[in-house]
Amino acid sequence: MVPKIYGSTVAICARRVLFVCHELNILYEVIRVYIANDDHKKPAHLEKQPFGQIPYIDDDGFILFKSRAICRYLVRKYGHQGTPDLLSTDIQQEALFEQAASIESFNYDPNASGIAIKRFFRPIRGIATNEARVQEYVENLGEKLDAYDVVLSKQKYLAGDNATLADIFHVPYGMMVIKAGFGDVFEKRANVWRWLNELRNRPGWLAVEALDTPQSN
Amino acid sequence: MVPKIYGSTVAICARRVLFVCHELNILYEVIRVYIANDDHKKPAHLEKQPFGQIPYIDDDGFILFKSRAICRYLVRKYGHQGTPDLLSTDIQQEALFEQAASIESFNYDPNASGIAIKRFFRPIRGIATNEARVQEYVENLGEKLDAYDVVLSKQKYLAGDNATLADIFHVPYGMMVIKAGFGDVFEKRANVWRWLNELRNRPGWLAVEALDTPQSN
Repeated sequence: MVPKIYGSTVAICARRVLFVCHELNILYEVIRVYIANDDHKKPAHLEKQPFGQIPYIDDDGFILFKSRAICRYLVRKYGHQGTPDLLSTDIQQEALFEQAASIESFNYDPNASGIAIKRFFRPIRGIATNEARVQEYVENLGEKLDAYDVVLSKQKYLAGDNATLADIFHVPYGMMVIKAGFGDVFEKRANVWRWLNELRNRPGWLAVEALDTPQSN
Repeated sequence: MVPKIYGSTVAICARRVLFVCHELNILYEVIRVYIANDDHKKPAHLEKQPFGQIPYIDDDGFILFKSRAICRYLVRKYGHQGTPDLLSTDIQQEALFEQAASIESFNYDPNASGIAIKRFFRPIRGIATNEARVQEYVENLGEKLDAYDVVLSKQKYLAGDNATLADIFHVPYGMMVIKAGFGDVFEKRANVWRWLNELRNRPGWLAVEALDTPQSN
């Protein structure tokens, strides 16, 4: 049985999981959860994902949610099938990976996802975009990317000279920031732009881009 | 040489690291970084922590920042000294730990830290509290804690019946939410309140509480 991904090929966090599946040549099945119908807030979904979010996976009866946790699990279970070094077991290298993963979670994602949510997903649900808040996110993201640019002037990726999951995690919302018209926040920082372009041109992401056009569901 | 923690015993994210040090009986030295003097934005600090945040550690020359990454590193290196099971190496148990860690990072921390930052830390720097934003964080936190309450009605902790780092990570900002006068967001959810009280009464946290009174630095 291949892992079942409950979500959608066009949902941003599901695309993070799909990126890893394609990097590792993992066969999978997508079971569509219709956000527009509020399927993610219905009892059958909440029984598996009590926060009412997507995606979750069912891997031979093992239920797991939160996209980054799913990606880590897939690398641990199927890592031998694809790209090496997406996670490490050396204590210091693992620590630097966790540092990079926390940079993504706390310094990048709140701003990048904030831009996408306010600009794209709230309007779909009839809520006007708060443009002042979008600008706040863009400014905060720019400040954080200044530090990224320093780090990426000394090494190729966030945790060293090999790409890890921590780098890959940035791509889905990074593409939405570009789609929202704020690509210059990356482009005007040369090392960041080089890094993001290397990541978005990985075969795993190109395969995801070929699946569908991203939207809220 | 004991690990040097650059930060402060009263800074919230440093207290997350100190909690783990006391859980694992790790001797440490705190090198004070004065936020009020903007020491965290000066070249000597930025050379080690390019984002200008605290804490970072120097463990025999190994530099690491981001408090959760530091905690994971300390458990990997010193875990045999204290509480067992704060991290797991079983693939499914590890996956459930990562799920719990992501719940803390994405569903809890943005709201809990948002309350503390708006209510306590911005005013110290002369910025008025945006009370509407505080209310938004409190409401969002309450919605997420509804799902926590479901999870914690079935198991003692977020990743199963043993406490892990994912649980411990909640405490420092949880205490600030209570200090801000919003303790009922926890208290009115019986399973959440039982869980938080178990965590805040762990010897490691009681030792941190005995060090100093929390503030922005």
